[in-house]
Amino acid sequence: MNKLQYGMVGGGPGSFIGDAHRRAINLDGKAQLAAGCFSRTYEKCLETGVELGIDPKRCYADYEEMARNEAGRLDYVVVVTPNVSHYPVCKAFLEAGIHVSCDKPLCLTPEQADELVALAREKDLLFMVTYTYTGHVTAKHIRDFIREGRLGKIRTVMAEYPQGWLAYEGEWGGRQGEWRCDPAQSGGVNCLGDLGTHVENIVSMMTGLKIKRVLAKLDKLVPGRVLDDNDVVLVEYEGGAVGSYWTTQVAIGRDNDLSVRIYGENGSIEWKQTECEKVLIVSRDGTLTERHRGNGGISADAAKYGRLPSGHNEGWLEAMANLYRSFMECISAKAEGFFTPEMIDFQTVEDGAEGVKFVHACLESNNRGNVWVDML
Amino acid sequence: MNKLQYGMVGGGPGSFIGDAHRRAINLDGKAQLAAGCFSRTYEKCLETGVELGIDPKRCYADYEEMARNEAGRLDYVVVVTPNVSHYPVCKAFLEAGIHVSCDKPLCLTPEQADELVALAREKDLLFMVTYTYTGHVTAKHIRDFIREGRLGKIRTVMAEYPQGWLAYEGEWGGRQGEWRCDPAQSGGVNCLGDLGTHVENIVSMMTGLKIKRVLAKLDKLVPGRVLDDNDVVLVEYEGGAVGSYWTTQVAIGRDNDLSVRIYGENGSIEWKQTECEKVLIVSRDGTLTERHRGNGGISADAAKYGRLPSGHNEGWLEAMANLYRSFMECISAKAEGFFTPEMIDFQTVEDGAEGVKFVHACLESNNRGNVWVDML
Amino acid sequence: MNKLQYGMVGGGPGSFIGDAHRRAINLDGKAQLAAGCFSRTYEKCLETGVELGIDPKRCYADYEEMARNEAGRLDYVVVVTPNVSHYPVCKAFLEAGIHVSCDKPLCLTPEQADELVALAREKDLLFMVTYTYTGHVTAKHIRDFIREGRLGKIRTVMAEYPQGWLAYEGEWGGRQGEWRCDPAQSGGVNCLGDLGTHVENIVSMMTGLKIKRVLAKLDKLVPGRVLDDNDVVLVEYEGGAVGSYWTTQVAIGRDNDLSVRIYGENGSIEWKQTECEKVLIVSRDGTLTERHRGNGGISADAAKYGRLPSGHNEGWLEAMANLYRSFMECISAKAEGFFTPEMIDFQTVEDGAEGVKFVHACLESNNRGNVWVDML
Amino acid sequence: MNKLQYGMVGGGPGSFIGDAHRRAINLDGKAQLAAGCFSRTYEKCLETGVELGIDPKRCYADYEEMARNEAGRLDYVVVVTPNVSHYPVCKAFLEAGIHVSCDKPLCLTPEQADELVALAREKDLLFMVTYTYTGHVTAKHIRDFIREGRLGKIRTVMAEYPQGWLAYEGEWGGRQGEWRCDPAQSGGVNCLGDLGTHVENIVSMMTGLKIKRVLAKLDKLVPGRVLDDNDVVLVEYEGGAVGSYWTTQVAIGRDNDLSVRIYGENGSIEWKQTECEKVLIVSRDGTLTERHRGNGGISADAAKYGRLPSGHNEGWLEAMANLYRSFMECISAKAEGFFTPEMIDFQTVEDGAEGVKFVHACLESNNRGNVWVDML
Repeated sequence: MNKLQYGMVGGGPGSFIGDAHRRAINLDGKAQLAAGCFSRTYEKCLETGVELGIDPKRCYADYEEMARNEAGRLDYVVVVTPNVSHYPVCKAFLEAGIHVSCDKPLCLTPEQADELVALAREKDLLFMVTYTYTGHVTAKHIRDFIREGRLGKIRTVMAEYPQGWLAYEGEWGGRQGEWRCDPAQSGGVNCLGDLGTHVENIVSMMTGLKIKRVLAKLDKLVPGRVLDDNDVVLVEYEGGAVGSYWTTQVAIGRDNDLSVRIYGENGSIEWKQTECEKVLIVSRDGTLTERHRGNGGISADAAKYGRLPSGHNEGWLEAMANLYRSFMECISAKAEGFFTPEMIDFQTVEDGAEGVKFVHACLESNNRGNVWVDML
Repeated sequence: MNKLQYGMVGGGPGSFIGDAHRRAINLDGKAQLAAGCFSRTYEKCLETGVELGIDPKRCYADYEEMARNEAGRLDYVVVVTPNVSHYPVCKAFLEAGIHVSCDKPLCLTPEQADELVALAREKDLLFMVTYTYTGHVTAKHIRDFIREGRLGKIRTVMAEYPQGWLAYEGEWGGRQGEWRCDPAQSGGVNCLGDLGTHVENIVSMMTGLKIKRVLAKLDKLVPGRVLDDNDVVLVEYEGGAVGSYWTTQVAIGRDNDLSVRIYGENGSIEWKQTECEKVLIVSRDGTLTERHRGNGGISADAAKYGRLPSGHNEGWLEAMANLYRSFMECISAKAEGFFTPEMIDFQTVEDGAEGVKFVHACLESNNRGNVWVDML
Repeated sequence: MNKLQYGMVGGGPGSFIGDAHRRAINLDGKAQLAAGCFSRTYEKCLETGVELGIDPKRCYADYEEMARNEAGRLDYVVVVTPNVSHYPVCKAFLEAGIHVSCDKPLCLTPEQADELVALAREKDLLFMVTYTYTGHVTAKHIRDFIREGRLGKIRTVMAEYPQGWLAYEGEWGGRQGEWRCDPAQSGGVNCLGDLGTHVENIVSMMTGLKIKRVLAKLDKLVPGRVLDDNDVVLVEYEGGAVGSYWTTQVAIGRDNDLSVRIYGENGSIEWKQTECEKVLIVSRDGTLTERHRGNGGISADAAKYGRLPSGHNEGWLEAMANLYRSFMECISAKAEGFFTPEMIDFQTVEDGAEGVKFVHACLESNNRGNVWVDML
Repeated sequence: MNKLQYGMVGGGPGSFIGDAHRRAINLDGKAQLAAGCFSRTYEKCLETGVELGIDPKRCYADYEEMARNEAGRLDYVVVVTPNVSHYPVCKAFLEAGIHVSCDKPLCLTPEQADELVALAREKDLLFMVTYTYTGHVTAKHIRDFIREGRLGKIRTVMAEYPQGWLAYEGEWGGRQGEWRCDPAQSGGVNCLGDLGTHVENIVSMMTGLKIKRVLAKLDKLVPGRVLDDNDVVLVEYEGGAVGSYWTTQVAIGRDNDLSVRIYGENGSIEWKQTECEKVLIVSRDGTLTERHRGNGGISADAAKYGRLPSGHNEGWLEAMANLYRSFMECISAKAEGFFTPEMIDFQTVEDGAEGVKFVHACLESNNRGNVWVDML
């Protein structure tokens, strides 16, 4: 077995998301971390590198140097820096001909997004944006269920993502919160960029609906916040369905409560990330049925990602690992010459670009007084 | 024990709400139905009257005749007709000097509402609008909890009321749905008038927040509907809090799922009507605590309405009966000369008028393309 | 409409269960309380009687006098005294030719039970034992579902009824607890008589299974208790199924959490009294389906008892009222000459006798060191 | 970073538990699989070995050969064979001086268990028995909460572990079920050995209670089973508390529903494995509080095992990984000379021996007609 070799930019001490990507990749044991630019100084970077068993020569303080040096040696790079640097880092590695996995949101502006899309296509590289929640078996099952037309025409989607960790005046949620609430690092939105993009993406992935226009209201509810911490977005989709998305960081008691409810002419689907092992399906006659990952009734394309029997809880890391499973299968297939686009079962740079445009449209709507703004 | 004597307008065969009011009043055995105008023909009215044990002479085909004849004989009247006739019926009984209990929504226009408010004051009569859900012990507890300042300043309110019974194209939900979906009987709104007013009212009752302005989007999602069946209303309250209300009749699988979530600077409250015996309270440190009706920790002003020990479920009829308990105590107190306004523990004509103005503002917002409209 | 006339023995000031029976009967407005022996002194009895609007001449300090005087005047009597007096009171009214509704447990000894069964048959009188929980629409649905063979052969039943109100050393749960914990008033068992009989009965009603033998362990866990407060009973049914019943009063945090889980060869049923509006049905392939009272899929013989649309919670009083609905329909039918035993949809004196024999067998098992004891 | 080197016995194609141990160990990236005897033939063993990247020379068809050859090269061995071979395999590796991690149940007889305990002590080797569920952060929190005396004296414990996968006549649950239902491979008990030992162990771990005696009823409910598939065990603990354990494989609809409820004089704890991220704590006044992994209020000794923020679900693999975290820390500490027994935060060979004796006592109780049997 030859493990894939990957590098990482970001993910130094105290980074939740870098550590999480590494663990998720470990879970299947198919790839090995071989190089990294974990922090901005060589000393700090080396510290992490040594702890992770990386050759000091492959620890970098400069991601551009890393991209140049590692071209041809890495199978892919994982980008887990604060939002503001996603664009230049991804660009550097694409230019070096390395497949990219970047945490969401993809970048800050629609222009950057279009450029990354174009560059990935031009270089014929795989580019995953790690919207973790789309990796859940149950999320994939919902996608397949809807694709098969089981809900009929979708009428309305109610999605939300409440958290409570930034509800406290004068507190900034530690290091994680500090960069998110800082316009310079997060890119001008906080809650919408962090949570709203998850909501936009998972609804899109599950339903296949395209957003036509949005009406957004971004609020700063905690005294002292300079960026939004509570947002509602009204949505109209192509084809006549409507939706409403709520995201917040002030809902004391809610840890990380992404949920999606989809109502169609022939039934409904309700899904909660905190109960990610099950999905509630309501049929046209109102019968409520609960399906569990690992049991019958889950679509084959979703069920194949399960690692444990039903009732043996899989969670967030498995969802992330599922993204990497498909990403790495595609990388291997590309290397061996039998890759086809149908193999892609992860969110791509195009999906990431949609997210950036969603944020952009919402900002414009809010700035203009909560009016309807068309998606690009 | 002298039971209070009450009359009823509406509540003939097939009426859910008339039967429900009668059962709720029966629950405590403090009042007796003595007269009625249950249907529009004397024969049908008499049929109901006989079944309910009413003197045929006190069965009426004409509510105005009933109001005139029963003046001085009835302690109060219950108005449970379709929305469109609430106004004239209530007016007739107020003019006859009879206390009124009217189902929500109060009436169709702000002008009618103002007139009823003025008339009730002029005649010094009690006027209850039966927003059933405000009768729950847990709803009253939340009100008291917030009044005491336990949540601190409220930041955001998320309330919703999904139902699924009108989700089916070509079906109108039987007799109940037919009049609601008919502009002539319901008064130009369906979902917003039926469910939206409940949401507006219970949030107001629980939080004490006053709505400053609304931005409403009323949709007709089921092909063939002429009135709204799915609504979202963005709300700004006086003092800076914001909210979002969702009501629908197309959520297949949701029976009657009113819920209110209130997030303040010092904690949160979450409440579901379908689990009306409990309330979730989150304190500032994120600790989730569940309180049950009938146990300690429920405010005395709420707990006194309980009829059964904890764990012996009370439900919808008890909530309605709680409204009547206070209403009838006030009527008796008024008769005996010791009534004070502080005794009122039910939603009044003034609250009902707020609901009418809310609907009016939402309609205007929607008609003008989902713009902000100030409450009157 | 002629209301049925009923009397009550027990149910004086502070009695939870007497008040509850009266309210439940009120709910449908088909009967009127006309006589009572609420307390043991005439003064106290009269006090309650006046409050309830009863003619002072029909208030009694002596239930035997009441039985004699009210013979031919009352349609039925409700017996809600402490357990120890159920037997003599019921006997007196049966001998007076009056139909009886008695709270559970029926009486203290199998001999008393057999005598009451024989007397009711001899006098051709209706005799209801008010096992409240069997009145729930969902409980009736489970009975019908199983009767139709939908679960196939039942294999195991797990039922429990934890409460926490008697968990506190030195406290006796107020007046309710005092008589239950007093051997002289409760009849030698506390938890088993109060809760265990509910469990035995509802399992029997739902499944139709007959108990062959029991192995019981009755414990006194709170220091100072002289009667059992935590019991486990292993059960073998005729036909090979097995079960286990747990009842307790020391489960701090559990209000009144009767639940029944039934596992058959073709699926399962799970039911919780605290969520009495729904039932979980699992089919052979493991699909979990939730059914709600008021929606489709509930058996017609159960659904007919609903008073409110789905999602408008019915609770404990409705369950009790459902028992009375059938009881009173049978009384009226008997009076009018068209009664047949198939009309009975409540638990009878025979069911009550089973409960007494269950308690008796459990006590013997426990006293002999937790050995198997055959049911009589 | 030097990764620990480990070997595995068992875990060939189709083995759920071997794959699970490998993934759990991968999660933290601190150890490397270096040798294995995955199957009984060299060809099959090699096939797995190659897939896992192991040197063919370190693939073995014979575990005794492996133990001899790998002595001094492996830091520890993982034993994941069917129950019947746990004893000889563990013994061989202990004799070779290699630390052992063995899946539960430890072995088949109390004599074997005592021998393994003695051998591990004699050789001064670490010996973990992987009772996965004890690895959950919430399980550790409960242990700490009780140790601190927060529940006061424990009165009763209700624990259960229902599964439904072996409910079907003529089906044996695939390869997993076949060996479990085969007396020759499982060691004479099926459900009790698989699930009952989990229950016995986690209750012991959480509460610290020692079992004094048991009364067990083991049933074979599915026609054709030769071993137990539904068991109830009554338990008396030293100090006066009582308990009841239920385990089954016939509960259609239940995937893997281990739960423990602990009632003490000052409150209660309720925990469900399927909702392993939270714990319900009830205080003496009946207040129900829910605590989430990752939030405040979790004991420091438990919280330190969390890898993700609250609301980002951890599951079964994390629980298993937590056992290995402590096991490997102890191994490293032993190698470096600073190990102390207080560092052990996993279930040991002594705990495993308790489980074997529990099974033995239950079998004896059942064979003698469900009588009380003292624990050894």
